[in-house]
Amino acid sequence: MTDPHLDALRQAVPGLHLKTDPADLEHYGRDWTRRWIPAPLAIALPDDVAQVQAIVRWANARGTALVPSGGRTGLSGGAVAANGELVVSLERMHRVLGFDAVDRSLTVEPGIALQAVHEAAAAHGLAYPVDFGARGSCSIGGNVSTNAGGIRVIRYGNTREWVAGLKLVTGAGDLLDLNRGLIKNSSGYDLRHLAIGAEGTLGIVVEATLKLTEPAPPAQTVLLALPSFDVLMRVFAEFRARLRLQAFEFLTERGLHHVLAHGGANPFDAVYPYYVVAEFDAADEAQQAAGLAAFEACSERGWILDGAIAQSQEQAGQLWRLREGITEAVARYRPYKNDVSVRISAMPEFLAQAQALLSEAYPQFDVVWFGHIGDGNLHINVLQPDDVADADFMAQCGRVTGLLAGLLHRHGGSISAEHGIGLVKKDHLQSTRSAEEIAAMRGIRRALDPNGVMNPGKLFD
Amino acid sequence: MTDPHLDALRQAVPGLHLKTDPADLEHYGRDWTRRWIPAPLAIALPDDVAQVQAIVRWANARGTALVPSGGRTGLSGGAVAANGELVVSLERMHRVLGFDAVDRSLTVEPGIALQAVHEAAAAHGLAYPVDFGARGSCSIGGNVSTNAGGIRVIRYGNTREWVAGLKLVTGAGDLLDLNRGLIKNSSGYDLRHLAIGAEGTLGIVVEATLKLTEPAPPAQTVLLALPSFDVLMRVFAEFRARLRLQAFEFLTERGLHHVLAHGGANPFDAVYPYYVVAEFDAADEAQQAAGLAAFEACSERGWILDGAIAQSQEQAGQLWRLREGITEAVARYRPYKNDVSVRISAMPEFLAQAQALLSEAYPQFDVVWFGHIGDGNLHINVLQPDDVADADFMAQCGRVTGLLAGLLHRHGGSISAEHGIGLVKKDHLQSTRSAEEIAAMRGIRRALDPNGVMNPGKLFD
Repeated sequence: MTDPHLDALRQAVPGLHLKTDPADLEHYGRDWTRRWIPAPLAIALPDDVAQVQAIVRWANARGTALVPSGGRTGLSGGAVAANGELVVSLERMHRVLGFDAVDRSLTVEPGIALQAVHEAAAAHGLAYPVDFGARGSCSIGGNVSTNAGGIRVIRYGNTREWVAGLKLVTGAGDLLDLNRGLIKNSSGYDLRHLAIGAEGTLGIVVEATLKLTEPAPPAQTVLLALPSFDVLMRVFAEFRARLRLQAFEFLTERGLHHVLAHGGANPFDAVYPYYVVAEFDAADEAQQAAGLAAFEACSERGWILDGAIAQSQEQAGQLWRLREGITEAVARYRPYKNDVSVRISAMPEFLAQAQALLSEAYPQFDVVWFGHIGDGNLHINVLQPDDVADADFMAQCGRVTGLLAGLLHRHGGSISAEHGIGLVKKDHLQSTRSAEEIAAMRGIRRALDPNGVMNPGKLFD
Repeated sequence: MTDPHLDALRQAVPGLHLKTDPADLEHYGRDWTRRWIPAPLAIALPDDVAQVQAIVRWANARGTALVPSGGRTGLSGGAVAANGELVVSLERMHRVLGFDAVDRSLTVEPGIALQAVHEAAAAHGLAYPVDFGARGSCSIGGNVSTNAGGIRVIRYGNTREWVAGLKLVTGAGDLLDLNRGLIKNSSGYDLRHLAIGAEGTLGIVVEATLKLTEPAPPAQTVLLALPSFDVLMRVFAEFRARLRLQAFEFLTERGLHHVLAHGGANPFDAVYPYYVVAEFDAADEAQQAAGLAAFEACSERGWILDGAIAQSQEQAGQLWRLREGITEAVARYRPYKNDVSVRISAMPEFLAQAQALLSEAYPQFDVVWFGHIGDGNLHINVLQPDDVADADFMAQCGRVTGLLAGLLHRHGGSISAEHGIGLVKKDHLQSTRSAEEIAAMRGIRRALDPNGVMNPGKLFD
């Protein structure tokens, strides 16, 4: 507690909350990746924007690296502090600062949880439509910094689409008040969009003004059993043409297997290669009838082998758990996660080639696929067998990710659809971004963080 | 024709089309602003991406400034070449390169006109929903470079929302293939969004992959006469809560006056302070009834003084012409245009203060207001009286724009909602962007255009 570094920080930022207990260092020094040994200098928990600015200026003067920290639910190591960095946790800055009914906007501090944003919007009869499993623990600052996607992107887009204003403390310690909630603003480079998805390498998000919208109309949820991925794409085309989709999620047989092994009842009597959880508007009888007609049209053509239509909210929840429960169900196998995307049109060929590649590369490993068809986003979870050691498993996964990255490159895809690059995918960034793009990003990073204090080592060196 | 500069360019870019006739220099050297005397070195008309890259590399080697040029319908001077620049016209690159039904995307060269994009989308039963008056002459490259907005932003957003991929030749001559049509891609800084709205200062847009969507449902168009702007905002809130709006445009009495003077019949017997052209979904009887109910609810409260409901497509077109015809109707007065935005909630107070400011500053000038309520975007056209000389008029307008910029700054607004900064608003950029933001933009510009060849003098110095 008499570290001269921290004494100087206390002097530079009067009243700053600091944590230095070993348990805190471990807790705040890692995210959900659990691959690096946390070793931060300390945890700073600022109360306001001025304290964040003072921390960043102190870090510039001292040459201390900073790691911005939200809910630490990230899966790319973006919030890991393993090299003596000062973690800047935004958890004390978690208030709703304002709501405007005319603008339909909610202004929040970065440490607020996604679910709290949902609730604040609902209290005004509106909705913030970005949603995914970590909603209870992830923070808006982290959502913005990874441009978080989730399960409603097909209808509502990514976090990027819902940020009307952003306050950013840059790596130089400047406070930028970006776009201020304007709908139209053609006044030079949109630095708001540059900060979204920057994984804390350009600065720290200290406030966001979020757009709200009408709550989604009542929906019908269905579970479909399908014979092949090609047929799955045909069903997707048919459903998208006939219905207003809210979600169109898929999982493989292995995904359902693990969810059911974790608890739950199989809605079907047989086992099928692919499953889809689809949700579409069913606000009136016409829309409900259209849903039934789409289902029947696909069934008649032999595309749908079996199906279940939720008859209640509770049943819809049960169907959703078959898809949303995968991550939890496979967590005990400490899966190696690939989170990739291609254009929707490229999915069938990419998936076939990737499955061939993985079954050749991992004949002994259990690989669980699931993802978001409407977004071209595939999640590939390679489960760690009990009899394979950590280092060996990681080495094999790293090697295969290299092969997968090559395949993605050929298909014009992305090595990170929604998790971010962080530390986990850094070595494969060049599969998605060219050398010229990375050089441009490096120049931009220098412009906003001249002394390199913001999350160094993340995204790219 | 023996300019050694151009001989070197011809050698560096074999087969490049060049124009050097005085009439061409004048034609391609200006945009719709008509305020600067065109004086380009020459006009280059590349046929493909390789030629664009070769031109930019030549410009870097020679230190020659480049002005990217689309339809030159801009209103900010962004495409003006008045200082011996080489104009790079993209007009020969105007093809549709591809359509994908699964991705719902259209890939085009930058010189294609917006209307040709509309038609190409319609040929596939889909729509590209960005739309505005200059659709026949403006180009997609220019639309992207100003993040063009228009009359459907309330429903569909700006150009930014519809760009899934962008190819950019940077100021350094590198070709960046940005985002490649992916829906989810969290792999570092989104340089696509940085290039959108950059007004050609970071590079030249050489290809765009545009998202398409379902055509808008059948709509009902109404014209409303209203007593005040406060009431107008109440009607907007009521309509937005009850209906699915496609447009909500307003004009003042002076706007209607000039449109009718230019030709056309007044649908009303009396003169009113404010008018609204609103359009909303009316695909079935329930939606049509909701429209009528919204109209009646506002009328009963005395908010709507008079109204007209289009009974046909033709009548809808007539109502729209009252709003869309303003620009053409006032063109002969060579108006000084302000294109500003504030948050929707700030509009009533801003408008009242701006009207007071303008009537004090321009007691002798005719000021025509119109704009997009749902976007917070106000267009202010100051008409040049016949007996006021150009220089005098411009000096007065520039001075008043300074006052307006101060008012915008206090309301957190933008000096350019959709036209861009270019040359016209450059001196007022600091009303909208802070010194720190401008410094960050300057650093970013250096990173992508190290030798400063891209549209120098535009946006900021």
